[in-house]
Amino acid sequence: MTTYAASLSDIRAAAERIAPYAHRTPIMTSAAISELAGCELFFKCENLQKVGAFKFRGALNAIASLSDVDASRGVVTHSSGNHAQAVALAARLRGVPATIVMPTSAPAIKKRAVLGYGATVVDCEPTLAARETTTAAVIEQTGATLVHAYDNDHVIAGQGTVALELVEQVPGLDAVVAPVGGGGLLSGIALAVRGVSPQTVVFGAEPVGADDAFRSKDSGQRVVDHTPDTIADGLLTTLGERNWPVVRDLVEEIVLVDDDQIRAAMRLIWERMKLIVEPSAATGLAAARTPGFRAHGFGRIGVVLTGGNLDLDPMFR
Amino acid sequence: MTTYAASLSDIRAAAERIAPYAHRTPIMTSAAISELAGCELFFKCENLQKVGAFKFRGALNAIASLSDVDASRGVVTHSSGNHAQAVALAARLRGVPATIVMPTSAPAIKKRAVLGYGATVVDCEPTLAARETTTAAVIEQTGATLVHAYDNDHVIAGQGTVALELVEQVPGLDAVVAPVGGGGLLSGIALAVRGVSPQTVVFGAEPVGADDAFRSKDSGQRVVDHTPDTIADGLLTTLGERNWPVVRDLVEEIVLVDDDQIRAAMRLIWERMKLIVEPSAATGLAAARTPGFRAHGFGRIGVVLTGGNLDLDPMFR
Repeated sequence: MTTYAASLSDIRAAAERIAPYAHRTPIMTSAAISELAGCELFFKCENLQKVGAFKFRGALNAIASLSDVDASRGVVTHSSGNHAQAVALAARLRGVPATIVMPTSAPAIKKRAVLGYGATVVDCEPTLAARETTTAAVIEQTGATLVHAYDNDHVIAGQGTVALELVEQVPGLDAVVAPVGGGGLLSGIALAVRGVSPQTVVFGAEPVGADDAFRSKDSGQRVVDHTPDTIADGLLTTLGERNWPVVRDLVEEIVLVDDDQIRAAMRLIWERMKLIVEPSAATGLAAARTPGFRAHGFGRIGVVLTGGNLDLDPMFR
Repeated sequence: MTTYAASLSDIRAAAERIAPYAHRTPIMTSAAISELAGCELFFKCENLQKVGAFKFRGALNAIASLSDVDASRGVVTHSSGNHAQAVALAARLRGVPATIVMPTSAPAIKKRAVLGYGATVVDCEPTLAARETTTAAVIEQTGATLVHAYDNDHVIAGQGTVALELVEQVPGLDAVVAPVGGGGLLSGIALAVRGVSPQTVVFGAEPVGADDAFRSKDSGQRVVDHTPDTIADGLLTTLGERNWPVVRDLVEEIVLVDDDQIRAAMRLIWERMKLIVEPSAATGLAAARTPGFRAHGFGRIGVVLTGGNLDLDPMFR
C-alpha cells in the first residue's frame, strides 16, 4: 500500500496547530454564478486567509512543527509569490528568522511585503538553478530549515486543512475543484477528502499553458519538462515528487482551461461576488464551467478561491 | 417632539419584510486596517448585498409595502446608479412592472443591468429637471408609484435595517460611520441606532466636493445649492427633505474627506480585505482615518461599506 505525504491524522494535527493563527475562511455563494455553471457552487475564500492566500496554512504548519533547536536556526525558502509572504509571517509568529530567496525579477511590491513581515530577502538570478544554489548557500551558512512551497509533507498537511473546513462547512459535496501548480493544495485536499468525505470526487484545475499535471496523469509518469506560459502566475511550478502519487491515485481528473476562460471566470468573481481573486484562483471556476466537467452532472461543488494577491495599479492610475 | 421619517418599529417591520430576499451581510475585519486607523474597525459588507449595494433594502421595503392595487400599476424611479437596479430587482420579486428613468449619460453597463432585471428603461436628458419631468410623465401615463431613492419613509426604514444587523453582529460599538449623499442610509441608521443602541454615536462621511450635508449641519438649514464634484459618484445627490431633520438632530457630525483620501481608503480595502468597493463605499473608512475623527478616541467603530458596483474594465484590458 502506498504511503502518501500526509495521513488524515497529520492533517487534523495541522488544523489544530494552525487554528490559533489562521482564519477559518468563509464560504461564499453567488446565485448568478451557480446559474451560469448549472450547479450549486460553494466558494472557499482563501483569498481572505492571512497574507491573502491558502499558502499561510502550509507554511505555518511546517514552521510550527519544527523542534525548538531547528526553529532557532531559522527557515529559508525560495519563492516570488504567496509562499514567500506565508513563510515570512509564519516565522515571525514563531519568533524565528526567515530568509526568502527571491529572483531579481520579483515585483517590488512582493519584496516589500516580505520585508514588512520582518524577513530577510536574498536576491538571485531569475532561474530555478540560481534559486536552488542560493537557497543551499543560505542553509550552509545558517543551518536554516528549507520550507519548500509544496514538495513538503507538513506543507501538504497544512493545505489539506482547507478541505477539512470546506467539507464541514458544506455537507454533501459531490465534488471539489482546486487549482494545481506544484500540487501542495490539490494533494492536501485529496488526502483530506479521502478521509472525511470519500464519496466526494476531487478535481484539479490547470492552465493549458502549464499542463504538466494533466500530462503526468495522462502518461502515468510525472512530467518534468515544462515551459509554462499562462496568466495564472501562481501555477507555473512543476508538480512535486511528494505530490505526484496523490494526484495520480486520488484525483479524478485534471481539467484544462485556457487563459481566456481563466480571465472570464476571474471577472465573474470580481463582478458578481465583489471578491478580489488573482488569476490562479479563478482557475477552479473556469474548470467547473467547462462542458467536459459539467457532463459529470454534479449538483454541489466546492471550489477553492486560492488567493487574492495581484497588482491593482491598473484600477488606481 | 419632532416626528422623523421612520420609527424603530417601522425599521423592525422593514427588517421582517425584506428578510426572505435580502442578505444578512457579513461583518469583516482587517487587523492591518484597524492598526492603521488606531481602533477596531468592523465593516458591514453591503457590497455583498443583492445588486451589490444597500439600496436593495430600501427599494424592497418600499415596494413590498405597497397595496396590491398600487403595486399592480407598477413603480417608477429616476436613477443612474445602484437604486435603479435595486428597484428593478425588487419589482421583479413582487412581480410588478418597473420603469427606470435614466439619463442618456448613464453607462451602458448600468442600463443593461436594469434591463436584465426585466425593467423598462426610459431615457432622458442628463439634468435633474429632465429626470423629474420624465418621471412625472410616466406616473401620469401609468399610475405607477414613485420610489424615490432616499426622500421616502419606507426607503429610509429599509436602509435602517443595516444598523439593526450591525448592532446585533457587533456588540458594544462606540460609533458608526456611514457615507451620506441623499441621506437615506445615514438617516435610517441614525433612527435605528437611537432605538437599539443609544450610546453609539452616528457619523456621516461626505466628500468635500459634495459637502451639502456638512454645510447644512453647519448652518442649521438644509443647503440645496450644490454643484458636486467628486469620484464618489454615489454621493452626488442633495440631502433630502425627509432625511434632513434626522441628520440635523441625530447625527453627531459630518466628517469631510477629499478624493485622495477616498482613493487611498478604497485601495486599502481592495488590497487588505480583497473586497471590491466603489469609491462612495470607501468614504466611511476615509473619514475614520482623519485626525479629527480619531481625536474622539473611540475604540470600536462600525463602518458601512455601501456598495461594490464600478467599472472594472481597467483591470481586464
